[in-house]
Amino acid sequence: MIDEQTWRKFIQYVDGNHDTAIERLSELVRIPTVADPITPNPALDECAQFIRSWLQRIGVHDARVVTPEVNPLVTGSLGNDPGKPTVLIYSHMDVQAAGPETDWETPPFEPVIKENRLYGRGSGDNKGQFIAHLLAIEAYQQLGIPLPVNIRFLYDGGEEIGSGDFARFVEQSTGALAADYAFTSDGPAHESWRPTMVLGGRGIVYLKIRLRTINRSTHSQYAPVLPNAAWRMLQILNSMRDPETGRVTVDGFYDDVREPDRADLSLLGAIPSPIENLREQLAPDPFPDISSDEYYRRLLMEPVLNIAGFAAGDLTGNQTVVPGHVEVKLEALLVPDQDPQRITELLKIHLESWGIGSSDIEIMFTMKPSRTPPDHPMVGPLTDAMRRVWDTEPVVMNRFASYSPYYLFDQLGMPGFYIAYAQPDQSNHAPNENLDLTWFRNGILTSIAVLDQFGRHGEVRNQ
Amino acid sequence: MIDEQTWRKFIQYVDGNHDTAIERLSELVRIPTVADPITPNPALDECAQFIRSWLQRIGVHDARVVTPEVNPLVTGSLGNDPGKPTVLIYSHMDVQAAGPETDWETPPFEPVIKENRLYGRGSGDNKGQFIAHLLAIEAYQQLGIPLPVNIRFLYDGGEEIGSGDFARFVEQSTGALAADYAFTSDGPAHESWRPTMVLGGRGIVYLKIRLRTINRSTHSQYAPVLPNAAWRMLQILNSMRDPETGRVTVDGFYDDVREPDRADLSLLGAIPSPIENLREQLAPDPFPDISSDEYYRRLLMEPVLNIAGFAAGDLTGNQTVVPGHVEVKLEALLVPDQDPQRITELLKIHLESWGIGSSDIEIMFTMKPSRTPPDHPMVGPLTDAMRRVWDTEPVVMNRFASYSPYYLFDQLGMPGFYIAYAQPDQSNHAPNENLDLTWFRNGILTSIAVLDQFGRHGEVRNQ
Repeated sequence: MIDEQTWRKFIQYVDGNHDTAIERLSELVRIPTVADPITPNPALDECAQFIRSWLQRIGVHDARVVTPEVNPLVTGSLGNDPGKPTVLIYSHMDVQAAGPETDWETPPFEPVIKENRLYGRGSGDNKGQFIAHLLAIEAYQQLGIPLPVNIRFLYDGGEEIGSGDFARFVEQSTGALAADYAFTSDGPAHESWRPTMVLGGRGIVYLKIRLRTINRSTHSQYAPVLPNAAWRMLQILNSMRDPETGRVTVDGFYDDVREPDRADLSLLGAIPSPIENLREQLAPDPFPDISSDEYYRRLLMEPVLNIAGFAAGDLTGNQTVVPGHVEVKLEALLVPDQDPQRITELLKIHLESWGIGSSDIEIMFTMKPSRTPPDHPMVGPLTDAMRRVWDTEPVVMNRFASYSPYYLFDQLGMPGFYIAYAQPDQSNHAPNENLDLTWFRNGILTSIAVLDQFGRHGEVRNQ
Repeated sequence: MIDEQTWRKFIQYVDGNHDTAIERLSELVRIPTVADPITPNPALDECAQFIRSWLQRIGVHDARVVTPEVNPLVTGSLGNDPGKPTVLIYSHMDVQAAGPETDWETPPFEPVIKENRLYGRGSGDNKGQFIAHLLAIEAYQQLGIPLPVNIRFLYDGGEEIGSGDFARFVEQSTGALAADYAFTSDGPAHESWRPTMVLGGRGIVYLKIRLRTINRSTHSQYAPVLPNAAWRMLQILNSMRDPETGRVTVDGFYDDVREPDRADLSLLGAIPSPIENLREQLAPDPFPDISSDEYYRRLLMEPVLNIAGFAAGDLTGNQTVVPGHVEVKLEALLVPDQDPQRITELLKIHLESWGIGSSDIEIMFTMKPSRTPPDHPMVGPLTDAMRRVWDTEPVVMNRFASYSPYYLFDQLGMPGFYIAYAQPDQSNHAPNENLDLTWFRNGILTSIAVLDQFGRHGEVRNQ
């Protein structure tokens, strides 16, 4: 760890430059970088140029903007010392759409500071989090302390829409990204307000199924003789999952599941119990009758089949009708080492056995699961860094939601570490998104300490 | 039956007055009598006055308009000869809403004649059918032939919205309606284009169920631990019906079912096979693998539980979400002697055992089933009348769809006979509703022959 005296200098520097940091963040929040899968948004180019200039200012001579498909990426490298480990710092420039402006108390792209929080779309997801890395590097430079690592930068212009451009860039050229570790900051921290590190992400197969039993919905007087698409879909869905255990009953679904090992399981007990928060926030009924450990084991380590939508007939009137058509959206949420392609095939085989042909199954998107081993030798040093900044015990969790960059890190052959710098109530993806400025400051300090730890424990990089 | 010479006179009169009949129908179609359960529609009053004037013209001295709640009824009586049977002629003045005018080839309330059909909302349902009765009475009067029956008239202003005003009138005073038989003409004929008589109607319990498992839909990362409202509703619905047999598995559901007797069953073989029409019109998949007899037995005599609507989550986007809320519309379609009140209770008991309380069950409407015995002594004479007019074998069917007036006839203690005067492709309740003018003419002749048969077989009225 950084010695006490140097650490105090870093703190002094970061606190002394707090206002400038906030100004920079404000400049970025003003750029409405909502990505679209098809239509390029000029705001993303503006943001990419902003980042490129910043990188150049801190000495990244090969900073460049590339656009593999629709949305730009920014890449660049700092340092090339073979004696130091190399860290890929991943960030994303794009933001979620603001939604109806009337749901916002302040304009979404006009940063406003209230009660030590900066409000605005992208403040927490991901702009405040990614400039924390840049501000940390500036701290090293301004204090004349050599950077302990080589850095490869990657700024993604389409994380909120699935990181397709990043994936294509990885396919086309991976040289620019070669590194020992991937590091990123995103999302809100665990609901317990403890600093949080996430290791890996879930895979997913997201699909839409259509079923037609009669060529138009018809009067319900025919209900005794004509096949109702809703009843039939119910039967099909019930053939896919045991209602008592929730276990998926599609043949082969669990074949490739990598069972959590001792390291995975060892994390569970240390995650603060969700029960109180669940009761308050979501009031589930029935309330899950499980221990905190078991809750997190299922949440983080169990594959599942989820119905995300079901529509048949009509709910607006008093129609007496046999629905002839039904549409269902399903999500197979995967864990290592389930392969989305294989799961897609298994689902198709199952559905076909019930008469649903390929043309009625639309695979909307898929994502591979990924895993960073919880006993990776960098986990300890990184949590030490977090503990020092926040002065509390961090939460370390395995895979949780689906996060495209993670499987791409896997593909690039590097373990990924994800530390959240936004507080739990940042209103992620929602109106009135905001970033607590103390968490922002702690994010900068964490980045400083994390870079130091990567450098200090460089000896583990070839393990 | 009417002797051949008189019958020729009737035909001559009806054909000689065809144009006047069409004019009268056109006048009625121009009145947009769409009923609303809450807001009175002045067009219904206008129509009621039109009918009252007509009744007065043919000698109904007690014709009056009553409005038990929102929509008017017209009542009146013609004849009081204790030697003749009395027939209640039921009709409804209201029509279905026209829907988007752009779906119509001609304006819905502006009658247009094309290829021997009169187009316009209400032409077939029910205006052309009910004036056929009045035109038949005029034929008797103009030819100087005494009416063979006493007649009680009832014109309903709200059949399309459940005949609530008629039901209230029945509760308040039944004297005006006392009769030996009820007779009505409504709906399209059987798809085989044969003249059709229907005996009784289905009962129904139409309800909406809401289920909430978490107080808001949440990210699907929680799918392994939080109760998904859609999965839970699937489980509940599956507990209510055997998917293989379609049999309802709610305790007690079949307890009161009056099994079809020999007379009921004897009708089935004579109904033309639905198979060809089904294949063409609805192309059900799977195609019901049953005989025509069995098809009609189920269609006409089996209670069933139908899902009329199911909505959970959202189908418009790519949301990864655990739906916390689901809404389902169910119909229990009943047969004699199932009681909608008791079935409602049984459904509530079942749903409650799955944790769905009364406040989440909304009974939208109910209707009692009704039955006219197929071996009633008037069935033969009435089908003879139909056979004479159409020169083909009529279709006689038991209860089919739910039709409020039928259970009210039951309540008034009179067997109901329903003969359709509109051709099968009248576009009932749909855009471009129309009435084939030959079917209209045959309807008038059928009314003449039916009144004669009721009078001629008056001896059966006390059976």
